[in-house]
Amino acid sequence: MSRTPPHPTRDQIELPLLLDCLSDPTRLAIVYNLSRHDPAATELRCGDFNAFSGKSNLAYHFAKLREAGVIQTRIAGTTRYMKLRRKDLDARFPGLLDAILKSATRDAERLQFPECEVVSAA
Amino acid sequence: MSRTPPHPTRDQIELPLLLDCLSDPTRLAIVYNLSRHDPAATELRCGDFNAFSGKSNLAYHFAKLREAGVIQTRIAGTTRYMKLRRKDLDARFPGLLDAILKSATRDAERLQFPECEVVSAA
Repeated sequence: MSRTPPHPTRDQIELPLLLDCLSDPTRLAIVYNLSRHDPAATELRCGDFNAFSGKSNLAYHFAKLREAGVIQTRIAGTTRYMKLRRKDLDARFPGLLDAILKSATRDAERLQFPECEVVSAA
Repeated sequence: MSRTPPHPTRDQIELPLLLDCLSDPTRLAIVYNLSRHDPAATELRCGDFNAFSGKSNLAYHFAKLREAGVIQTRIAGTTRYMKLRRKDLDARFPGLLDAILKSATRDAERLQFPECEVVSAA
């Protein structure tokens, strides 16, 4: 069984909040990594991001991403599973997420994005 | 004669700073209005934005936009002239500015963007 914390609906996603949310390099790195594992609509676990930041810091960033409508979070036991809300973001602001991800990919080295250690596929 | 305050070079434009800069509704409104007057590469004057915010607040927002590499500013006498750095932004992050402007246009009413009183054309 899993529970779901509150999320904004698609229509409640706001542009200023979205841009503010993605202006943080750690959150941008999380979204960049989610997008690269997303084609199969995979969920990633909070533990996959341990290289990104301290644990309490990560919890804060995941909450910010959820509140801005960027990720869908579900909690099972003590584990959080995250998924990019690509469909909602593309419907609300066509082309925006792709443009931001393309820009982030271009600057991935410069932004020193850490790589995800995906353990959740196991 | 006019003088030019410091600007980042094209290569110095950073994605997190750019997104943070445009996450502010007043700055987003300024850029949205500049983009609509930009086809002819028109400069707008600070006075054109008087409806947007208080004078000292506006000066702060213009400085943020200049420091993030979004606008080119030149000062002539007591007047600031602003121009969107579209070429630099498009070269640095292809498609990003357009996607953000398209999203802003979509939400212009919701974001309550003020209209520019262009007096500088005179």
